[in-house]
Amino acid sequence: MKDLEITRQLAGWVVGLDAGDIPAEVRREGVRTFVNWLGCAVGGASHETVDRALDAVRMFSGPERAQVIGRDDRLDELHAALINGISSHVLDYDDTHLKTIIHPAGPVASAILAVSESRAVSGRDFLTALVVGIEVECRIGNAVYPDHYDRGWHITGTAGVFGAAAATGKLLGLSRQQMMWAIGLAATQASGLRDMFGTMTKSFHPGRAAQNGAMAAFLAKANFDSSERAIEAPRGFANVLSTKQDYSEILDGLGSDWEAGLNTYKPYACGIVIHPTIDGCQQLRERLGGKVAAIASVGLRTHPLVLELTGKRRPNTGLEGKFSVFHAAATALLRGDGSPTAFTDEAVRDPAIMALRDRVDATSDAGVPEDAVHIAVTFEDGERIELHVPHAIGSLERPLSDNAIGKKFTNQSVPVIGEAAAGSLLDMGWAIETSPDVAAIARAAAAS
Amino acid sequence: MKDLEITRQLAGWVVGLDAGDIPAEVRREGVRTFVNWLGCAVGGASHETVDRALDAVRMFSGPERAQVIGRDDRLDELHAALINGISSHVLDYDDTHLKTIIHPAGPVASAILAVSESRAVSGRDFLTALVVGIEVECRIGNAVYPDHYDRGWHITGTAGVFGAAAATGKLLGLSRQQMMWAIGLAATQASGLRDMFGTMTKSFHPGRAAQNGAMAAFLAKANFDSSERAIEAPRGFANVLSTKQDYSEILDGLGSDWEAGLNTYKPYACGIVIHPTIDGCQQLRERLGGKVAAIASVGLRTHPLVLELTGKRRPNTGLEGKFSVFHAAATALLRGDGSPTAFTDEAVRDPAIMALRDRVDATSDAGVPEDAVHIAVTFEDGERIELHVPHAIGSLERPLSDNAIGKKFTNQSVPVIGEAAAGSLLDMGWAIETSPDVAAIARAAAAS
Repeated sequence: MKDLEITRQLAGWVVGLDAGDIPAEVRREGVRTFVNWLGCAVGGASHETVDRALDAVRMFSGPERAQVIGRDDRLDELHAALINGISSHVLDYDDTHLKTIIHPAGPVASAILAVSESRAVSGRDFLTALVVGIEVECRIGNAVYPDHYDRGWHITGTAGVFGAAAATGKLLGLSRQQMMWAIGLAATQASGLRDMFGTMTKSFHPGRAAQNGAMAAFLAKANFDSSERAIEAPRGFANVLSTKQDYSEILDGLGSDWEAGLNTYKPYACGIVIHPTIDGCQQLRERLGGKVAAIASVGLRTHPLVLELTGKRRPNTGLEGKFSVFHAAATALLRGDGSPTAFTDEAVRDPAIMALRDRVDATSDAGVPEDAVHIAVTFEDGERIELHVPHAIGSLERPLSDNAIGKKFTNQSVPVIGEAAAGSLLDMGWAIETSPDVAAIARAAAAS
Repeated sequence: MKDLEITRQLAGWVVGLDAGDIPAEVRREGVRTFVNWLGCAVGGASHETVDRALDAVRMFSGPERAQVIGRDDRLDELHAALINGISSHVLDYDDTHLKTIIHPAGPVASAILAVSESRAVSGRDFLTALVVGIEVECRIGNAVYPDHYDRGWHITGTAGVFGAAAATGKLLGLSRQQMMWAIGLAATQASGLRDMFGTMTKSFHPGRAAQNGAMAAFLAKANFDSSERAIEAPRGFANVLSTKQDYSEILDGLGSDWEAGLNTYKPYACGIVIHPTIDGCQQLRERLGGKVAAIASVGLRTHPLVLELTGKRRPNTGLEGKFSVFHAAATALLRGDGSPTAFTDEAVRDPAIMALRDRVDATSDAGVPEDAVHIAVTFEDGERIELHVPHAIGSLERPLSDNAIGKKFTNQSVPVIGEAAAGSLLDMGWAIETSPDVAAIARAAAAS
């Protein structure tokens, strides 16, 4: 234990990394990550959760150097990071590192876009910081998952703050010593409880992780010191917040095996464990046509996490609907919908959806993979059909195409910033690697 | 479990409490708590830790509505809360709730003085918020101590954020519903690792707890919602951050037995577990006179926490010196000092102190209470004397008098803001209950 230098080695890697050290396919995944995040942040920006957060914090903002995405507000960098992180996650429509259920972009991209705006950061440097931040976040997540998550930590917040600190620190040009302190200041702010799921505070977690991680980097830049072994010390992050500590997940293959290349993008606006069910129910709907109205009962056989995370029987709000596999199945069968409109207050109160929802049942089966589901539908006339989804759309085996990511971007952003602005912003997002200054992208994401 | 309503009941109590519900002796302890905190915040304000924190965050500050104590800076309320919380703790000279080793005032007073300044808050209302915040913080601490602390959490940060949220929420006039959300937003930000002890980040914890708790209250005021069972839910604070959950500590005797009446004030500027040793060594120094120079070895028999927390053999900086019972014993014997000047870089590098430090040994004895010590000194001529301190000065059995608190205030604040300002500020502190507007106190704490 005494000889472990996880924090020091990780910090050294972050500081020493050049853009050219990142393989082209990983950088490409970084671009897809950025475009998906940007669309989600625009799409979530008009949510009431964001309104209320802005109502609370606007009076504390410093000089308005950073754009609130999808709004006409400008705030200081740290507050913009907070709000953009909330917006990007509030619809549960963002990205997922499937090994850990971390939503990687929220904490990292929200921090660095806000920080970049007044610093003339090139798209190339931005993308390097984004990839390195996601790599740090997911590797630290791997080291403690699943114990850490099972214990009740919202890992997007707790691991995300490290990603935000590393990425911001990379942009600020921290020394290795300062990067170790930034990681320490991130570790000591790692927080976010799963009990918040189904409330506005869930999306507060990636927002706050972005803000706290950025602040950690600025403090370290000012030589505010911290532990140099914050990840691995006996009373450091991994030991205090987890019963599992596998440090090989952090250092092994660093720079050759890229977690940042394994990001996935949600086709549906809810917890990823429900995605196989929605996918299957949409397929069934297409097959059944009008016969959907004659369903007597629906039986789901799913991975145990589905009921653990999304077992809410009777959701009362759209946010709660995201945590009800029953609501999601009913809505996919009746409306074919898994987009944000499937998880509104209106949808969860629709009498037809409520009636079908009550006829959906689910059983846990540890033999069913997380991205799979078995669905059995019984009709009023006694007929029974079955469907097996081995890999949900959006999984690593069936990734969203660039085209699908673009469509998702457009569907989300047109209602918020209009068609012309959304089209132009999407083009800028895909072209980020050649952008001379990403501030232009942030400003183009404003609501007019 | 399902019927537990800890968060709801605690929130209801906070919201319903009137100033007149607090016994006079508890309010009096609140005044002593405030005066002690104010002196510590002034005294710590010129520390390099505060310089660096200000260097990092000044550019993010919103409108300058709140005074940075002991400085000529003004910041927005949340940033002032952060910095004042750091200042008040950086010398490890503040107050202690002995049952939990929480330093109660830092998170709470730092939040509410900053928030009060632009709101015309009377001293009476301020004191009510201070007492209620400390009560909430210490009761939540009691519910999870010692497991939570042993696991590696810096309980002043993790419990402190609840106190800051409750106290700020009380000042903002939150409804019961909003107070539940504020507690939830505090719970999900509870953080601070003990691995940071000995670095600048230790004092960041009460500062950030003050800032985060205040922000939780402002978010709740804007109806940003959160879990309503954040303390007791299966994935809430107590279960995720502790293996012990004794909720009777939170609700039993609420309003009749006051933890806020049990605060103590440090006579020495370091971790409280070293205080019996310093007290005893100071007594020995007076008894021995010049014979101190002939000490061959010093043997301490202490509570096990002493070596666990302050077992650093060779501190290199003043901050590290606070975590070395060996340094503290040597300095008390050679200089009679336990004040901030005993824990400077100069002191830990003094060859005479270093030489004696290396001749101090300590053994753990679970039979020795935390506020006691047995000291045995052996001289070069073979003579041996012993001293037993049953209760250190500053403990509940030997509390600091008002006079001693006043002297401590003066010793700390005169070098920072000058004699006239310090005298006037001390008078205002003692008279806080009759202050029509505590903003005057905040402004009087500025460095000229």
